[in-house]
Amino acid sequence: MRIDLNADVGESFGAYKIGEDQPLFDYITSANIACGFHAGDFNVMHDTVKKAKEKGVAIGAHPGYPDLQGFGRRSLQMTPREVYNLTVYQIGALKMFCDLYGLPVQHVKPHGALYNTAAESPALADAIAEAVYDTVPAAYLFGLCSSELVKAGEKIGLKTASEAFADRQYTDEGRLCSRQQPNAVLKSFDDILNQVHEIVLHGRVKGLSGNWLPLKADTICFHGDGANVAEHTAHVRQSLEKENIIVTAVGSI
Amino acid sequence: MRIDLNADVGESFGAYKIGEDQPLFDYITSANIACGFHAGDFNVMHDTVKKAKEKGVAIGAHPGYPDLQGFGRRSLQMTPREVYNLTVYQIGALKMFCDLYGLPVQHVKPHGALYNTAAESPALADAIAEAVYDTVPAAYLFGLCSSELVKAGEKIGLKTASEAFADRQYTDEGRLCSRQQPNAVLKSFDDILNQVHEIVLHGRVKGLSGNWLPLKADTICFHGDGANVAEHTAHVRQSLEKENIIVTAVGSI
Amino acid sequence: MRIDLNADVGESFGAYKIGEDQPLFDYITSANIACGFHAGDFNVMHDTVKKAKEKGVAIGAHPGYPDLQGFGRRSLQMTPREVYNLTVYQIGALKMFCDLYGLPVQHVKPHGALYNTAAESPALADAIAEAVYDTVPAAYLFGLCSSELVKAGEKIGLKTASEAFADRQYTDEGRLCSRQQPNAVLKSFDDILNQVHEIVLHGRVKGLSGNWLPLKADTICFHGDGANVAEHTAHVRQSLEKENIIVTAVGSI
Amino acid sequence: MRIDLNADVGESFGAYKIGEDQPLFDYITSANIACGFHAGDFNVMHDTVKKAKEKGVAIGAHPGYPDLQGFGRRSLQMTPREVYNLTVYQIGALKMFCDLYGLPVQHVKPHGALYNTAAESPALADAIAEAVYDTVPAAYLFGLCSSELVKAGEKIGLKTASEAFADRQYTDEGRLCSRQQPNAVLKSFDDILNQVHEIVLHGRVKGLSGNWLPLKADTICFHGDGANVAEHTAHVRQSLEKENIIVTAVGSI
Repeated sequence: MRIDLNADVGESFGAYKIGEDQPLFDYITSANIACGFHAGDFNVMHDTVKKAKEKGVAIGAHPGYPDLQGFGRRSLQMTPREVYNLTVYQIGALKMFCDLYGLPVQHVKPHGALYNTAAESPALADAIAEAVYDTVPAAYLFGLCSSELVKAGEKIGLKTASEAFADRQYTDEGRLCSRQQPNAVLKSFDDILNQVHEIVLHGRVKGLSGNWLPLKADTICFHGDGANVAEHTAHVRQSLEKENIIVTAVGSI
Repeated sequence: MRIDLNADVGESFGAYKIGEDQPLFDYITSANIACGFHAGDFNVMHDTVKKAKEKGVAIGAHPGYPDLQGFGRRSLQMTPREVYNLTVYQIGALKMFCDLYGLPVQHVKPHGALYNTAAESPALADAIAEAVYDTVPAAYLFGLCSSELVKAGEKIGLKTASEAFADRQYTDEGRLCSRQQPNAVLKSFDDILNQVHEIVLHGRVKGLSGNWLPLKADTICFHGDGANVAEHTAHVRQSLEKENIIVTAVGSI
Repeated sequence: MRIDLNADVGESFGAYKIGEDQPLFDYITSANIACGFHAGDFNVMHDTVKKAKEKGVAIGAHPGYPDLQGFGRRSLQMTPREVYNLTVYQIGALKMFCDLYGLPVQHVKPHGALYNTAAESPALADAIAEAVYDTVPAAYLFGLCSSELVKAGEKIGLKTASEAFADRQYTDEGRLCSRQQPNAVLKSFDDILNQVHEIVLHGRVKGLSGNWLPLKADTICFHGDGANVAEHTAHVRQSLEKENIIVTAVGSI
Repeated sequence: MRIDLNADVGESFGAYKIGEDQPLFDYITSANIACGFHAGDFNVMHDTVKKAKEKGVAIGAHPGYPDLQGFGRRSLQMTPREVYNLTVYQIGALKMFCDLYGLPVQHVKPHGALYNTAAESPALADAIAEAVYDTVPAAYLFGLCSSELVKAGEKIGLKTASEAFADRQYTDEGRLCSRQQPNAVLKSFDDILNQVHEIVLHGRVKGLSGNWLPLKADTICFHGDGANVAEHTAHVRQSLEKENIIVTAVGSI
């Protein structure tokens, strides 16, 4: 059994530092690198790509809405064509830094509100899948398990990876609880570890009411800006490896 | 004898329209497309690349400082590495839209204050030349005639194109008069036409004091946001063709 | 009978010019001045306030979402407190330019998506009304006729002005048709003139299906970025004055 | 003997946290609050003004260049009129939040590159002094000791406060060493403490070559984003109070 561990990195901006990229790179296998719209800038992107290469972590483009103040977590009303264009732009920018180091764009994962909207909206999911297909056709499209985004990727002929979240509470329908809700984010490390174990070893996750939902995940997301994220990720990885799970990038599976 | 006519296009942003791109595309042979930092956005870039293809106009990346309010005309204190990174980012974004249409990035021309700083500063000129070389090595680097930028391009092994300006007054040393000066921009069409004729046919330009300076140009720039720029460009082109000058993109010379 | 004619002005940004502010100032009685978030900048604001004073046009703050690319026309998910804060900030900035010239902030009118959201959402309407009350309690709050915003203003003790639109198609329920719909904006001047006459003289407007809706308006909005808006406004004003309607700022009624 | 201790606060932006505002407020007497251009946003401003009131710390507006990525530390070529306008705008926005709490704007201190440029350029210093005089005439203008900014403030009739820096190395001419230089910022707490003692108790500071320069300061700046700034400020304050220096806001002296 194999699993990929991913995290959002490269989210610093100018003088503003966020996240624990440096230690995280020792434990994750796939890095979602912000592309300068909701977070990150051209300097941070270059440094982050370089660091990913040094650490042997696979790189993904992490396009988001152009909303730095909202950290890409606020939905912006855009047509599918606009979403297509912003995805092409951001993948293009990141790919160029990857090209400098001879690295492929292993995957594309939309960020925040773009990710959530694309999980529900077939039109936006298609726009993103099309943008990925037109720019980096060999890349994996990361999307929430059984979301419209994963479906759109499969439909157009992309490789896809179904993603589950280490520290996010699931609804009874298998969606992520909104961040507006008080318990949207798991705070205790035991809860996080349990959730990952259940997902990876037993293919299931607990909904809000305590019901079990089937969940088949190819990759687990750790939030780059979460508290103690590097430490949590290290422990989860160690614990998974004890169970003989092979932790490796989705592209090398 | 041959000459390339270029203009800055794709400078609109969101609801803000600027320039006369549509008619200009009938007369220019090379288009410098803004990359979303000093002007342009991902939607405008896509539309502009598409239009360039339809009109058979060669495409160049037109990276600038990240300063929309200043339209990239204000210098920003950045290290050579930061300038390298912003150039890589913007070329990457534009190249991806070109890739969608199977078009090459024919050239790279820095915009505004970045262009002017790179004309004088060997360190920034090297940073830009290196970014172009590392990302689109087959592209031409456009720079002011006999500038540090052209020298940096030649040194690193890039093809270069020396650029002269249709509507900008030259100093006695062959530099562009600063836009802070009252006569920096030629207003009368006769002056513009004369300047282009002298440059293209006689390899010379008049400085502020009326002295003639030798000037060998491969491409002439028309300002996309100048008044009546499309009409001026049309007349200049017609007039050059009457003199049996072949007007064609630098990349096809 | 009296009516106020208002328009959005001061929407230029840096090198980007938009709207026909100069001629519009001859015909409108109230100016909604952008505050640097969805449009406008500190230079444009100063110039626009100065021009309003010269022309004797009453000034209003026109706060919007922080989204220049979207021109404030895209909704952003914000808490009421965030909306309160952005309204306070923008009113504060504009009021300071008014103070330089000894002018009051006659009114506050939210822009675009903020206006539309506040028309429907009591929580956001309350946040805006509270911000106006806490900062410029003598100002009028402009809102769509019978909207939540007008109600919130009345509830908190503000003077309010009910607004109708010269060139926007109304739904059968008396709301504005969404700009996503093809006929959202009236194109023909005759249609615009008729709509204003019906509103001002007969207190009614035609819905999409041709039904008449009662509509009591204190002020009529002309879109500053509409085609021929200054000419249209001039003709409408002339035509209203022929009917002995007194065209005057809401604050002087 | 009395001294004011000030720090830049309210520099967080959206999801990005910077500085140690919370503990700093226990030790400083004047707070320079970012106004949303180089740092800060409308939510952060409101929270910071509120916190300053709770802690009894005097508030100053801290206007900067519109350059979030550069944290206002990069000079932008602007005319004096543009600098006047951006200062008016930012003071206006901050003042409105102060008005909500019945607090005065005790002082205005330009940030970063704007502060440094105004220290040397009489034209920009005059523009800023004029903006302060026109908007908050009772406020103190903070400027580098014996800078053009302090002179401009005195000339126009403002109260001024000469400022020295706790952790910045001075040149032999009494200017701040540029941040581009390796030793621009004092790293050791002993060096910081010594520098403050020499300034406050003996009216002098050591230049790069070890020479003593006379320096009469009304207020000492601690950098809000420096390492351990709150702890350093606490110790410095304690140490000054042991010497019977009264630590109090400039406006209450």
